[in-house]
Amino acid sequence: MTLIDFEKESAFIRIISVTRVPPFTFPHMSRRRRNETSDATTAPFRQLRSPWPPLDVLTPDDLARIHNASMQILENTGIELLDGEALEIFRKAGAKVDVGARRVWPDRDFLMGAVSKAPSSFTLHARNPAKSVVIGGDHIVFGPVGGQAYSTNYERGRRPGTLADLEELLKLVHCFNILHHGSDTLVEPTDLPAHTRHLDSTFAAFRLTDKTIMGHSRGRTVANDCIELVATAFGGLEAAQNKPVLIGIINVNSPLRYDDWMLGGLITYARAGQPCAITPFIAAGAMGPITIAGAIAQQNAEALVGIALTQLINPGAPVLYGNFTVDAHMRSGSPSFGTPEGAWATLAAGQLARHYKLPFRGNGSLSSSNVPDAQAAYETMMSLWPAILARTNFVYQGAGWAEGGLTTSYEKFIIDVECLAMMEALLHGCEVSDESLALPFINQVGPGGHHFDTEHTLSRYSTAFYNPIVSTRLQYANWVEAGSLDAAKRAHAKWIEALRNYEEPKLDEGVCEAMREFAAKRKAEIGERALTP
Amino acid sequence: MTLIDFEKESAFIRIISVTRVPPFTFPHMSRRRRNETSDATTAPFRQLRSPWPPLDVLTPDDLARIHNASMQILENTGIELLDGEALEIFRKAGAKVDVGARRVWPDRDFLMGAVSKAPSSFTLHARNPAKSVVIGGDHIVFGPVGGQAYSTNYERGRRPGTLADLEELLKLVHCFNILHHGSDTLVEPTDLPAHTRHLDSTFAAFRLTDKTIMGHSRGRTVANDCIELVATAFGGLEAAQNKPVLIGIINVNSPLRYDDWMLGGLITYARAGQPCAITPFIAAGAMGPITIAGAIAQQNAEALVGIALTQLINPGAPVLYGNFTVDAHMRSGSPSFGTPEGAWATLAAGQLARHYKLPFRGNGSLSSSNVPDAQAAYETMMSLWPAILARTNFVYQGAGWAEGGLTTSYEKFIIDVECLAMMEALLHGCEVSDESLALPFINQVGPGGHHFDTEHTLSRYSTAFYNPIVSTRLQYANWVEAGSLDAAKRAHAKWIEALRNYEEPKLDEGVCEAMREFAAKRKAEIGERALTP
Repeated sequence: MTLIDFEKESAFIRIISVTRVPPFTFPHMSRRRRNETSDATTAPFRQLRSPWPPLDVLTPDDLARIHNASMQILENTGIELLDGEALEIFRKAGAKVDVGARRVWPDRDFLMGAVSKAPSSFTLHARNPAKSVVIGGDHIVFGPVGGQAYSTNYERGRRPGTLADLEELLKLVHCFNILHHGSDTLVEPTDLPAHTRHLDSTFAAFRLTDKTIMGHSRGRTVANDCIELVATAFGGLEAAQNKPVLIGIINVNSPLRYDDWMLGGLITYARAGQPCAITPFIAAGAMGPITIAGAIAQQNAEALVGIALTQLINPGAPVLYGNFTVDAHMRSGSPSFGTPEGAWATLAAGQLARHYKLPFRGNGSLSSSNVPDAQAAYETMMSLWPAILARTNFVYQGAGWAEGGLTTSYEKFIIDVECLAMMEALLHGCEVSDESLALPFINQVGPGGHHFDTEHTLSRYSTAFYNPIVSTRLQYANWVEAGSLDAAKRAHAKWIEALRNYEEPKLDEGVCEAMREFAAKRKAEIGERALTP
Repeated sequence: MTLIDFEKESAFIRIISVTRVPPFTFPHMSRRRRNETSDATTAPFRQLRSPWPPLDVLTPDDLARIHNASMQILENTGIELLDGEALEIFRKAGAKVDVGARRVWPDRDFLMGAVSKAPSSFTLHARNPAKSVVIGGDHIVFGPVGGQAYSTNYERGRRPGTLADLEELLKLVHCFNILHHGSDTLVEPTDLPAHTRHLDSTFAAFRLTDKTIMGHSRGRTVANDCIELVATAFGGLEAAQNKPVLIGIINVNSPLRYDDWMLGGLITYARAGQPCAITPFIAAGAMGPITIAGAIAQQNAEALVGIALTQLINPGAPVLYGNFTVDAHMRSGSPSFGTPEGAWATLAAGQLARHYKLPFRGNGSLSSSNVPDAQAAYETMMSLWPAILARTNFVYQGAGWAEGGLTTSYEKFIIDVECLAMMEALLHGCEVSDESLALPFINQVGPGGHHFDTEHTLSRYSTAFYNPIVSTRLQYANWVEAGSLDAAKRAHAKWIEALRNYEEPKLDEGVCEAMREFAAKRKAEIGERALTP
């Protein structure tokens, strides 16, 4: 039974089949080119701005209520800071502190006074100045995953992360310009010694891509090492003081506790004027109340304390308000990713960040799926859409997230890159102008014709629409003929192709050597000694 | 290498692993229940309303420009109507008509005068009054696919659609209450004679679910048969006059042509006061300009002509403004589905429909993928999110769409149901109240504790969060132990389970018999005669 039979029978199919009449062969378009997907690695680097107003899910009353709840939490319950220096900073600034109990009860005036000193926007500098990014306002920066323990791909299977994996993933970050930002922890290089791994990771990140990167932030030694290593390329520590060149992620040990490692990192980054993304991670029902409003109130309290601390240390230091509240799956105890509750939390948290006039950090590719399947994709979209609508300035965990964050998947990375690129194209919008309204051509074609060969089409067809990276447009029979590959299998081919075409953005030889020397010196100094917070 | 090793090394993993400490066993929760997904077939039927303001992607100037372009298209180029009665209706009402050329050039005052008579909202009645739905305003109705030629599933493979397939799919529509609406063309029953198939399909749809349904709309005979068949259950044709009980989809043969079949259907539905969804289908670059603004201007012109016609026939008749503008893939000639351009077109068209104060019909599960893979899911989300943000009152093609609309996939149907259900949960929002802010419990748990066993959690854990239908929350090792099933394979099991549990909502015996008799009588009358428009 052929399509033609159905054309007689189903109005809808008949309509759809109109475009199957040609396939029209455009000039200079070989048969081979007609079905291929985009070589996305040649897309230009450009920072994204949202043309849309952010979506407010909280009424002004509800927003005030959540803010007030956060203040009450801090005033009544307080927050634990497992670091003497952090406690001392709060004490000296006039907050209520019990050093023995390691707890702080900042009141609202104190807290908001400190928070108000943080900038609403800052520039994060890349070694290639054309790839520096603004974080704040209506700007949106996409970054890949970070912090994963395993890597997985269709080439070599699932395994603990290695330096080779990290380097490959860094190369992929460099290849795809929809990723504006890199990460030194795309996967943990577990084949390297734990005490000095941060030096290798951050150096690799700085060498293999010329985009902005993040550094390790676990404890003073590690944070200092990463900052000094990168500062080497910007004229040294003094030149890089208060010039954002390295971003650190500071997680909270929710509920209501910052540990010594994270506080050491926070203090070190803030003192150097390097941006921290202060991010409580709350699975509602586990590390916070099972009600999302309560979890958000707690997240808000936790985040504001870290943000205030950065401003007590270095007023005006760049800092991001981070959100990572999701729901715990109460039948298994695991956090759930890419859920309606997580989406709502993102939207509410974004609104709070705007209320405090702070740059907002959210997440892009969250999912609980263990494979790059339909669930992985719809959950990713259930993270990414709210991130965009919340006008997330720094979309972290934006490509490669798998297995609830335990693992970086190469195939998922490519699929996520497609999702990010589609979102960019959508935000880019469609021009409304005399040219794009095309009335003369609508009139020329008239009723019942087609637009394949108008001058309007011929002058635009090669660049008219979003060109997919991994999505197929092949009709069923052609797709079967091409091997019946699903999106994950095509993604496998795509990352292999991208790595094959990767060209290292050569670092200045002198800078490279100075960084190498610094890393070697620090490795020797650290040796086998245990790191401290 | 166990997770514990990574906990020492990665702050992020350490944070994530906090919730892995229990898994806490709740009272009355057996080990088996802890990991199972939702029996979504027991979810209550409730109509959705959007709490969000719709997203305007057009500036007021751009909106006026597109409107003006549409008016110019109709005033200068005109539109072809391949039906004598339709031409005569326009002529009698005072429009400029060339009957010989079968073309109409309605001017803007004439057109907008007619369009303004259409209601902004109406109730579509189900045979079960509890399942009647409001179409318009901030209401959102989810419906499944319609018009597909093939069916495919993991049980029986891919084949031309049959009545057995249609019946199974209707049962699935009945099972999942996130679908508010049925369709008599979930797949074409190609094993039945083409001339009388509409009677079997519409009767099956009315019998197997008690939700609102659509009828065939291809030509006067078919449309009349479907309306009279369904009216039988509502007290006959007279009682059902102007009481919406059956919705018809009217596609336009873009560019700028309505054929005789569609006009016959439109006239018949409008005259009976039954709602038409007037939906041009434009692949930009093929049936309209390659620029989306131009394609939307053309779509707008085409849709408004059909809408005006319904009002010339029966002022106040219910009618929907439909959108189905996508981009043609210029390398293959096929329409592309679930793209950024399609998303933008949906948002722009929704804004136009609101401008004209008309209920808006869009699409939910569009994708070009040939399998229920990651592409199918992210493209579906690239259709569904804009549909929600455009405040689409009638989301058609919302579950089961595969192979660019040629085929209904059972597995994709289940995956789409999950996407729709997540969207409902998100729109439902999260309560902000003293109870949900949970301050006493945040205080009780204090820093560093967990919320698994608070009274707050224990009283809410069984219903706290969105409960997935097909998504897994299993951690990697448990997921492998459970068979390493991806979402599509789990969806396969879900639809089989749903069909097993299906209970037919029995139609009143007298009504059923009367409908059966009507269908038999009409089949005998039609016999082997070819249908006419």
